[in-house]
Amino acid sequence: MNKSYTQDEYISLINSALYNCVSLTGGEEDKVSKAMLYSLKNGGKRVRPMLVLEFCRACGGEVEKALPFACALEMIHTYSLIHDDLPCMDNDDFRRGMPSCHKQFDYATALLAGDGLLTLAFSVASSASLPPETVIKAVKLLSDCAGYRGMIGGQTMDLQHENKQITLEQLRMTDALKTGMLIYAACVLGCLAAGADEKSVSAAEIYAENIGLAFQIVDDILDITSTAEELGKPIGSDAENLKSTYPALLGLEKSKELVAELTQTAVNAVSIFGENGKFLSDYAVKLSVRTK
Amino acid sequence: MNKSYTQDEYISLINSALYNCVSLTGGEEDKVSKAMLYSLKNGGKRVRPMLVLEFCRACGGEVEKALPFACALEMIHTYSLIHDDLPCMDNDDFRRGMPSCHKQFDYATALLAGDGLLTLAFSVASSASLPPETVIKAVKLLSDCAGYRGMIGGQTMDLQHENKQITLEQLRMTDALKTGMLIYAACVLGCLAAGADEKSVSAAEIYAENIGLAFQIVDDILDITSTAEELGKPIGSDAENLKSTYPALLGLEKSKELVAELTQTAVNAVSIFGENGKFLSDYAVKLSVRTK
Repeated sequence: MNKSYTQDEYISLINSALYNCVSLTGGEEDKVSKAMLYSLKNGGKRVRPMLVLEFCRACGGEVEKALPFACALEMIHTYSLIHDDLPCMDNDDFRRGMPSCHKQFDYATALLAGDGLLTLAFSVASSASLPPETVIKAVKLLSDCAGYRGMIGGQTMDLQHENKQITLEQLRMTDALKTGMLIYAACVLGCLAAGADEKSVSAAEIYAENIGLAFQIVDDILDITSTAEELGKPIGSDAENLKSTYPALLGLEKSKELVAELTQTAVNAVSIFGENGKFLSDYAVKLSVRTK
Repeated sequence: MNKSYTQDEYISLINSALYNCVSLTGGEEDKVSKAMLYSLKNGGKRVRPMLVLEFCRACGGEVEKALPFACALEMIHTYSLIHDDLPCMDNDDFRRGMPSCHKQFDYATALLAGDGLLTLAFSVASSASLPPETVIKAVKLLSDCAGYRGMIGGQTMDLQHENKQITLEQLRMTDALKTGMLIYAACVLGCLAAGADEKSVSAAEIYAENIGLAFQIVDDILDITSTAEELGKPIGSDAENLKSTYPALLGLEKSKELVAELTQTAVNAVSIFGENGKFLSDYAVKLSVRTK
């Protein structure tokens, strides 16, 4: 078994690599760099980069070599939150208990900071010390999963559904793109970095699909059952915005059951890694019972 | 001498490749894809992709193989215009005589269309049929030139200079990043695609630097001397916005002289390509005397 890491060890590895990617010169152009760093530092659970690193490790790869992919993915996730929070999108003033980027800086700076992080992600990914064919595959995967047929496609669907009743199928498809695609990218990028075999990649795909959906359902549940203080953002906003959610469409109990089922499927998928899959199965369970 | 192309032949090659990059599914996510295509089709002179293709040709490479880099660069240019036109930035309702993207669609759709084009650029670039090391270099070059130390850095400076008097040095630095970096990327990407030697790359760099600056000065001059009809956008907006421009800082005549000097330097640089440099030297002159 490879050297294992705790969640905290991963987070400190990720954070230090991530913050090192953005340099400040002290020049006039630093307003946007500062905004990029501000949003990177107001980070969450680092779910996506952690999955990159741990899938790499579980597949026998060197964790350090997967770091550029992990950082790139977290930058793409962060940019998507900055743009999502903008007044023309969700108009959210707070993110994880802190002013959102356009509140801390201004609208134009937040727009450019998002653009800057999205752009930087590809420079960082392309600098990975891995076989060139692997690096190209990773760049393409990142771009396709984040793009207009991936995450952005999901955001577009979300916009179209505003103030509308949608079906469970539409909700599932939207979430599969909006949240699911970057989680999928995370798990597969880790395998890529390790040069994993097809069987491992298939397991990663099943794991990703199931925890991705479970993650979104838990988000919806927490919007009802949590407190604003715990979440760092206003609760009940989904109901207020007449948003179709899993609890609204399935009921709270059925939603919780579905989370448990999906989590179990994810746990089963990574059992092929034996002892090396323990972090991933524990992590799937942790994400399913999180309170924020 | 390689098979040569006319400007019109290049433009039709570029347009058909470019429009093929965005597919429509007929689904809910198509609003953003349509906005992406709308802005790509409301194209300008295709300066950047044409430079990619012609530098590749002049250096003995196959033009078709450079097409993915050319398309990627034009997508990045187009995204930057969509975001630049947004109300939180320049708030321009028109672009080349047509409603700008957020006027034709809406603010959120334009934001996502810009994000979509920027993201897609890297998928397209990474799919080039060239040696993997070359593709990785191209992805990194695209990202660095477009990023917060490149084009976005220039946009940030531009924001900082709003309603302020700036020096010629500040103006030059801002333009070198905001306009210059993508033109630099264009010329060098063409060389990269052809596997050109260092001497050719150096010539491309000098050419890029000089036509890049000349291009911006001509833009400033046209804002004073042209008509709104010719330009497809309101004229005199720079003076109205108290924007520091070359004519404002140097005077109209000196600005015109500078354009002629820069163009001559660019022409001299590509003389090393002999007969193969003719398109590039003619093109530099054409850009310097354009009326829109």
